[in-house]
Amino acid sequence: MVITSTANNQIKAIRKLSHKKYRRESGLFYVEGLRQITSAMKHGALIEKLVFCDSLLESEFGRDLVEKADKENIPLLEVSEDVFLSISMKEGPQGLCAVVHQNVQALTEVIALRGLWVALENVQDPGNLGTIMRTLDAVGGEGIILVGDKTTDATHPTSVRASMGAIFTLQVLQASLPELREWLSDHEMDLVGAVCGPVSDYRGYNYSDDMILFMGSEQKGLTTEAKSLCSGQVTIPMVGTVDSLNLANATSILLYEIFRTVHPMEEK
Amino acid sequence: MVITSTANNQIKAIRKLSHKKYRRESGLFYVEGLRQITSAMKHGALIEKLVFCDSLLESEFGRDLVEKADKENIPLLEVSEDVFLSISMKEGPQGLCAVVHQNVQALTEVIALRGLWVALENVQDPGNLGTIMRTLDAVGGEGIILVGDKTTDATHPTSVRASMGAIFTLQVLQASLPELREWLSDHEMDLVGAVCGPVSDYRGYNYSDDMILFMGSEQKGLTTEAKSLCSGQVTIPMVGTVDSLNLANATSILLYEIFRTVHPMEEK
Repeated sequence: MVITSTANNQIKAIRKLSHKKYRRESGLFYVEGLRQITSAMKHGALIEKLVFCDSLLESEFGRDLVEKADKENIPLLEVSEDVFLSISMKEGPQGLCAVVHQNVQALTEVIALRGLWVALENVQDPGNLGTIMRTLDAVGGEGIILVGDKTTDATHPTSVRASMGAIFTLQVLQASLPELREWLSDHEMDLVGAVCGPVSDYRGYNYSDDMILFMGSEQKGLTTEAKSLCSGQVTIPMVGTVDSLNLANATSILLYEIFRTVHPMEEK
Repeated sequence: MVITSTANNQIKAIRKLSHKKYRRESGLFYVEGLRQITSAMKHGALIEKLVFCDSLLESEFGRDLVEKADKENIPLLEVSEDVFLSISMKEGPQGLCAVVHQNVQALTEVIALRGLWVALENVQDPGNLGTIMRTLDAVGGEGIILVGDKTTDATHPTSVRASMGAIFTLQVLQASLPELREWLSDHEMDLVGAVCGPVSDYRGYNYSDDMILFMGSEQKGLTTEAKSLCSGQVTIPMVGTVDSLNLANATSILLYEIFRTVHPMEEK
């Protein structure tokens, strides 16, 4: 049966996933596009349902995805073009979206962290958050830790889209600043804060294989309390007139510097 | 005289600057916020008029800016809060915006380029463009070259905002791909293309002091024709699951690698 009414209850519930409140209540989030859904299926995300629109789903790749989902017993929902467009957030919708279960864990429940992590104190912009996940995936990182109660969430549609599928490959943890403090007192882990000021040039810091890079919010950087938790601090030198870099860009520069120590350049 | 009507012709003309067509016709663009306007005044942008709203202009810094502009004979326009909110594109407007003359030059009119430049082939996202300008300013770069006829423009409000004032410190040039080809045949300048593929690791490339870093569009990367113009190509290694980085993030990583050769780390 094809759903043709935009007022259908299931469709209304999907549209509501653009609101943080409803994502929190339902524990679900909205995913759109072939690349993202491929990543979700490949990396074992728990898919509540797959929604497709036959007339928009032009690519063979997309049709194969629907078939594959059907074989894996993922519930399918076929909708009319009107209905699909009423839920789509994409320009040029590809006719495929999904409702996926969130997989966010509390840091306090985590016993040990290995590898490279990024902690973000009250990150505001979901586009920045998604882009940071994208770069963190590219350098082989493990996951992100959202710190503070004023943070955007990783399952915001803009964050999901900007992550280019990395939301399904990375772990997502959350903690308040006091929880992070307590966790650190029980666990040995380097926490390296990125700050503006007269601290180590980021190119001269001795990064560990297991570490958390700690970034502050777009407007304020790391708070004094957050800085006090760091085992080390680094800064990115600037010689122009701007007084800071974009958060995601700064994080990417730092992540590739850390990557350098773990993956030195191959000699030709 | 305070303008209190949102239908005032001057106010309507300012609102129209959000459209590319009208920016092109008028040669003007819209700038908002204390930081941006400070940068515009400091770096000699030609300001057509400064618009302020007394009740929103809370900071002393902002009031000083208006006074300074008045002394420099920049035309002032006082507006009511309603009118200001009808033109503002900012959350939490600070009561100050400006109409500024564009300063975009054709590459074909340029005799020589020195220092570090970024050329962008048909960049689509004005946020990416602005963020790239911000990082380019931070590494002491000279300017950007917008290549192709499908590019967003540097004076898009989102680009201006994301540049954090760098739009006023950098030169902005534009060229078609054939114009770039012709210019390169007459001028000796390294053009280093960023690509995906089996080319030099970006960390091992011998960057020149005078060079253009050439980045492709978000969706397609550099076209074959654009690549054919490059004197060298570099790639950023990735070990995760995503198949590319965000354009601005990739550009920032490369710019800081080039910065490294010009500004080696100071020994403590």
